[in-house]
Amino acid sequence: MTKDQLTEADRAEALPELLAAGWTMAEDRDALQRRFAFKDFRAAFGWMTQVALLAEKFNHHPEWSNTYNRVEITLTSHDVGGLSQRDVTFARKIDAIATGK
Amino acid sequence: MTKDQLTEADRAEALPELLAAGWTMAEDRDALQRRFAFKDFRAAFGWMTQVALLAEKFNHHPEWSNTYNRVEITLTSHDVGGLSQRDVTFARKIDAIATGK
Repeated sequence: MTKDQLTEADRAEALPELLAAGWTMAEDRDALQRRFAFKDFRAAFGWMTQVALLAEKFNHHPEWSNTYNRVEITLTSHDVGGLSQRDVTFARKIDAIATGK
Repeated sequence: MTKDQLTEADRAEALPELLAAGWTMAEDRDALQRRFAFKDFRAAFGWMTQVALLAEKFNHHPEWSNTYNRVEITLTSHDVGGLSQRDVTFARKIDAIATGK
């Protein structure tokens, strides 16, 4: 197990807060997903750009899709085959950007 | 029919060039799709940003998804229920950006 793979204890501590915030567990793999809706494309892509800069800074990248004002994002850590602490941290940062914090 | 919906003559004129360039017709609807691969996330998102600026300028937006260096893009015109001249123009511009022209 790599050092940042989520243990059961990590999951019990971190996931309830994210699930309460609107994240869901992917059905087919160990990943977190969330859908966001913005005012329009400009707002959606502006948010994506902020997330992209974070992703590049931390070298941890999302899987995501966008149609006009909607974005669906999936977080997982390919190198550990599932969720890691990086995904938890990234999810919290993504929420913070979305809510302007 | 709205004024920019593609006629059969338009399709015969415009689509062969796009299909030869790497675009495909979607299986389930009247839309053009293409997959691009870049060096890395930075290159992929840089290209997406250029496409997003074009999209906003012309008020015609793609459906797209990104995973690291890969982008899948779908073009269709929701207001005409299928392909329009805007999609053909947009596809050509997208190709031009991808190849640095």
